Amino acid sequence: MITILRLSHRLPRDERITTHVALVGRAFGADSLVYSGDKDESFERSIAEVCKKWGGNFPVSYVPDAIKWLKEKKKKAKIVHLTMYGLPISEKEENISQWAKEGELILVIGSEKVPCEIYEIADLNLSVTLQPHSEVAALAIALDRIMRGEELTREFDKRFKGIKIVPQARGKKLVKEE
Amino acid sequence: MITILRLSHRLPRDERITTHVALVGRAFGADSLVYSGDKDESFERSIAEVCKKWGGNFPVSYVPDAIKWLKEKKKKAKIVHLTMYGLPISEKEENISQWAKEGELILVIGSEKVPCEIYEIADLNLSVTLQPHSEVAALAIALDRIMRGEELTREFDKRFKGIKIVPQARGKKLVKEE
Repeated sequence: MITILRLSHRLPRDERITTHVALVGRAFGADSLVYSGDKDESFERSIAEVCKKWGGNFPVSYVPDAIKWLKEKKKKAKIVHLTMYGLPISEKEENISQWAKEGELILVIGSEKVPCEIYEIADLNLSVTLQPHSEVAALAIALDRIMRGEELTREFDKRFKGIKIVPQARGKKLVKEE
Repeated sequence: MITILRLSHRLPRDERITTHVALVGRAFGADSLVYSGDKDESFERSIAEVCKKWGGNFPVSYVPDAIKWLKEKKKKAKIVHLTMYGLPISEKEENISQWAKEGELILVIGSEKVPCEIYEIADLNLSVTLQPHSEVAALAIALDRIMRGEELTREFDKRFKGIKIVPQARGKKLVKEE
């Protein structure tokens, strides 16, 4: 099981980036997202609407104190913090994939300033390249390695009856299953 | 050679997403970025500053008419449009990797509404999952497949003398080469 923890969501600055983080989590095989910082009902609603329209179940919830929440979670789950200062993901793919399979894996995604405590609480600080880029990209690559690329070919939600995309060489094709 | 075309940059809405697109392009092995929409000197400056601080050469330039630019480019380059309506990337990895190696590959990244013409001009419309998520994530996965994961382990810029990250299990370590 994979839970994403998005730290210190700030309004309005992080509105779109946090939405992209959640949508990538949903599309690439994570199970839910928890966030701290500014409570944002419009963000929560927009993810719920995507699930309603496109299928899947991807709960989003708010925690006021992320460190307290992580410490509690650490009793049972494995915590992986994505940071450009961590150990290269290429060396740890097997571990994180195994952790997600065996129990709960929490992927921590920072914002501008990540408290030192996060580096200490994490079972693994993990880097996706040693260059500054994007938490959205780091999350996508981490989930891709955990899922071993299967997120790209799987049927997203077998039981979902609604809009589905039919891949096309040109243009757009949607079918609606009733 | 890989060039990214970011369509219809809108201020202030796309400020951070387009910045993430450019940073992912730079970190994951693209060579340059071209964008249309609102001209944004602050964005251009911020990418130039990242290159100065962290190395690499990643030119960002503006084109007023993206379709005209693409049509001109199409005479020599291969054009791949990332869209959730396209053919699955898992089936086309070899092609796009080969195109980037043999000549110029242009990766087109849309914004909210992509004109129909883009689907027609593209040599390939390519999907990264059939779900809505993020152009930042789609770009990261496409570049990862083109680079065959080598972007995660390569030395970023061999000739760069400046700040470099030394991967750590905990905390942050930077070295400055003079």
